[in-house]
Amino acid sequence: MFETAEIGNEVSKERYKKDLPKLRAAILEAQKELAVAKLSVVVLMSGVEGAGKSETVNELLEWLDARGLQVHALGDPSDEERERPYYWRIWRIMPPHGRITFFVGSWYSAPIIDRTFGNLDDQDFDETLDRIVNFERMLTNERTIVVKLWLHLSKSAQRGRLKDLEDDPKTRWRVTKQDWKFAKRYDEFRRVCETALSKTGTAESPWHIIESVDKRYRNLQVGRTLLEAIRKGLDAAKAPKPKNEPDMPKPKKVNIIGQLDYSKSLDEKEYDDRLPRLQGRLSQLSRRLHDAKRGMLCVFEGPDAAGKGGAIRRITQAMDARNYQVISVAAPTEEERSHPYLWRFWRHLPRLGRVTIYDRSWYGRVLVERLEGFCSTHEWQRAYGEINDFEAMLTEFGIILMKFWVAISPEEQLKRFKDRETTPFKSYKIGPEDWRNRAKWDAYVAAACDMVERTSTSAAPWILVEGNDKRWSRVKVLKTVVDRLEKEVK
Amino acid sequence: MFETAEIGNEVSKERYKKDLPKLRAAILEAQKELAVAKLSVVVLMSGVEGAGKSETVNELLEWLDARGLQVHALGDPSDEERERPYYWRIWRIMPPHGRITFFVGSWYSAPIIDRTFGNLDDQDFDETLDRIVNFERMLTNERTIVVKLWLHLSKSAQRGRLKDLEDDPKTRWRVTKQDWKFAKRYDEFRRVCETALSKTGTAESPWHIIESVDKRYRNLQVGRTLLEAIRKGLDAAKAPKPKNEPDMPKPKKVNIIGQLDYSKSLDEKEYDDRLPRLQGRLSQLSRRLHDAKRGMLCVFEGPDAAGKGGAIRRITQAMDARNYQVISVAAPTEEERSHPYLWRFWRHLPRLGRVTIYDRSWYGRVLVERLEGFCSTHEWQRAYGEINDFEAMLTEFGIILMKFWVAISPEEQLKRFKDRETTPFKSYKIGPEDWRNRAKWDAYVAAACDMVERTSTSAAPWILVEGNDKRWSRVKVLKTVVDRLEKEVK
Repeated sequence: MFETAEIGNEVSKERYKKDLPKLRAAILEAQKELAVAKLSVVVLMSGVEGAGKSETVNELLEWLDARGLQVHALGDPSDEERERPYYWRIWRIMPPHGRITFFVGSWYSAPIIDRTFGNLDDQDFDETLDRIVNFERMLTNERTIVVKLWLHLSKSAQRGRLKDLEDDPKTRWRVTKQDWKFAKRYDEFRRVCETALSKTGTAESPWHIIESVDKRYRNLQVGRTLLEAIRKGLDAAKAPKPKNEPDMPKPKKVNIIGQLDYSKSLDEKEYDDRLPRLQGRLSQLSRRLHDAKRGMLCVFEGPDAAGKGGAIRRITQAMDARNYQVISVAAPTEEERSHPYLWRFWRHLPRLGRVTIYDRSWYGRVLVERLEGFCSTHEWQRAYGEINDFEAMLTEFGIILMKFWVAISPEEQLKRFKDRETTPFKSYKIGPEDWRNRAKWDAYVAAACDMVERTSTSAAPWILVEGNDKRWSRVKVLKTVVDRLEKEVK
Repeated sequence: MFETAEIGNEVSKERYKKDLPKLRAAILEAQKELAVAKLSVVVLMSGVEGAGKSETVNELLEWLDARGLQVHALGDPSDEERERPYYWRIWRIMPPHGRITFFVGSWYSAPIIDRTFGNLDDQDFDETLDRIVNFERMLTNERTIVVKLWLHLSKSAQRGRLKDLEDDPKTRWRVTKQDWKFAKRYDEFRRVCETALSKTGTAESPWHIIESVDKRYRNLQVGRTLLEAIRKGLDAAKAPKPKNEPDMPKPKKVNIIGQLDYSKSLDEKEYDDRLPRLQGRLSQLSRRLHDAKRGMLCVFEGPDAAGKGGAIRRITQAMDARNYQVISVAAPTEEERSHPYLWRFWRHLPRLGRVTIYDRSWYGRVLVERLEGFCSTHEWQRAYGEINDFEAMLTEFGIILMKFWVAISPEEQLKRFKDRETTPFKSYKIGPEDWRNRAKWDAYVAAACDMVERTSTSAAPWILVEGNDKRWSRVKVLKTVVDRLEKEVK
């Protein structure tokens, strides 16, 4: 795999001087088009120690328009980063459309190092690589060009480079102990990298191995590769996109949401007795959750007027305001729209020990966005897998995840809509949009059934809540949360 | 001060039932107008333990449209928060236009508690309060309505409330040890709060003390106070704003920028000798900075083509990519525009141990925004003070702050503009805007002189760099940084 980058490629000073200006002008031109095409670029500057990763990034910074650039190296994670799933730190530095981010060290660094030094076994390494492939595919699908560069040096070339740097008093500072530590493991490192590169080199984001003995050759190759990748992305973005069409699925005659028992109810006396007891228990458990440094995440979905807000408030009433956050998902901001779809949810991910409640969520993608044609068929179809990956990262990290579908019958919704229209302080909750959604009742039920089928996992199950009687649904939600916490933080 | 809230105000159940719906409808209406008026609201829910701060917030959450709300309580800071000046954690949760944030516990909590328990002396307490006044004034000026509510209970009412809660098994969980700890210090606490409230109750954001023995009275008062404050803010926002006019100051005949010695230069040999030595030194120092957990922040301003980017790259070449960040300040995003001016700079503030370099900065306010009329006269005039406060927070926190004005003569700029126009890979750096700015050369010089005069402090000095010779200016910048670091992290 690396042999093609050990053949002695060189570029003369004259050639370099002649080719460089044209290349720089072309890259700049391509960079300018990114914003208009609504594309972001992520460049992974990877490779062997001593091959000049930082140096090459510095060179590119000189060539490109600095206003659209960011350089990030994933050093030691901060505490806030450690208290969230690994990918959070990557999401938080993802470039918006029109911008380029260089990663010196990337999501490959930790697994490759861990595997080289034996801290990760083959199976876990494979799983990590699979996750990376999914992640990069998602990025590519979401208008991010992923350019993966591998700067290569042979074993002897690496030793020579490090020694040369050390011998010159002016550049001695560039060589660290770390560099030699890796150089000593060259052979293992090379084998591990070969596995990593071969498993993650995909059609959408292939690896580019670049011989880095001759700096001029390396620089030109890196520049050309970057240019080509951006051009390819720009061309793909120009291809006519199929128009987003609303999808109108029909529910099965017998379906899990239609066959709920909507007559379930609680009388006032029982409610007044059970509610404060459950809240008292939840209060204790949420403090235990905090002390145990676990996180909890509750998602609420369901038709308009199903009583999501009321159920949420019965939870939060029992909690210390310092430890929870309710996020009402509204239309994305401009900044959010210029990032991949899941960015705005990663953005607000709580630290361990906290509770976050989403009033509507990332499931909007496969519900309203699907039905209204706000996204393409391909987009909502691949969303199930993306969401499952996202939630797996949360639950594997130890976050307790519960997803509630609060269901009501169409008759009950009508009653509540009318009540909202006639009560002044409720009227803001009802508008033409709600009536429009109501008209698509069956399609919503069908989409919700698809969603439950595709995304209910044992680690992150959907809980269906009969919501015609508010007392019943509030107590059921509370009890579900309490029972789960009893198990998890007992 | 608190006596007016110990007179036994009550509201009957009937009265409450009658008044509430109208109040709720009116608040909702006002909330809806916030987005159009481009106003944010910050509500500080403060007061005595047991007065029902959380309870009141929960009540308001029920009244308001949840989509525009956030509740935050300032618990223990995270490590990332501790590694930045105190106000960072507040800025990161500031609401954008159209939204309301409730603070249960606020920037008052820590100083009041510290003063009550004797961990803060009178003088430091006063200084903290002064800073708060400045901060809130800035918020108000920047389209944020600050509503400060103080829920009050007399000493005996507080004891009674805590006991009642404890006696009922259903509400026992609401009372914590912390509550009793504070209750025991009631008298000291009251005295400290009196000082805090009297020193920070300003015309723009007065304190509202609300008697909280009777819950119905408390809720109605809180609701009415909030409504009135929002209404007042909405009315003020409707008043016709004076049109922003470009300001065209004239420089003094003899001024610090004009009288720089632009003939200063270095020959190639000396440059080639000094540059790598300075970079080597900087490399060591930046690692020491990292280990010492200090932060460094460099700001670069100056005319177009002065060589800011080149000087910045000579610094970053010497540093580990993990430890620095270059931020090129471009036009603010929609999200940034819907927050106070300084938000976007706080946002990217580095953790301790890191270096951040700003290619243009918050000084845009008193340079381009002043000259182009992008902000009002009042806005750029008050910016000097706001910037000084901002920078004082940085330097007091231990961040090393250096501000470079890279100066060139108009003749040199003309030469460089022409060179840019004729070199393909440089041509992106030059456009009509640059020529327009150039036409206002004198006004820029005058604005820069004002800026240096108003914002050069011993802790955060401006360094004027003669930039006609690039070798000279790069070495001067590097040497300044190295010398400062030698002093600070030796």
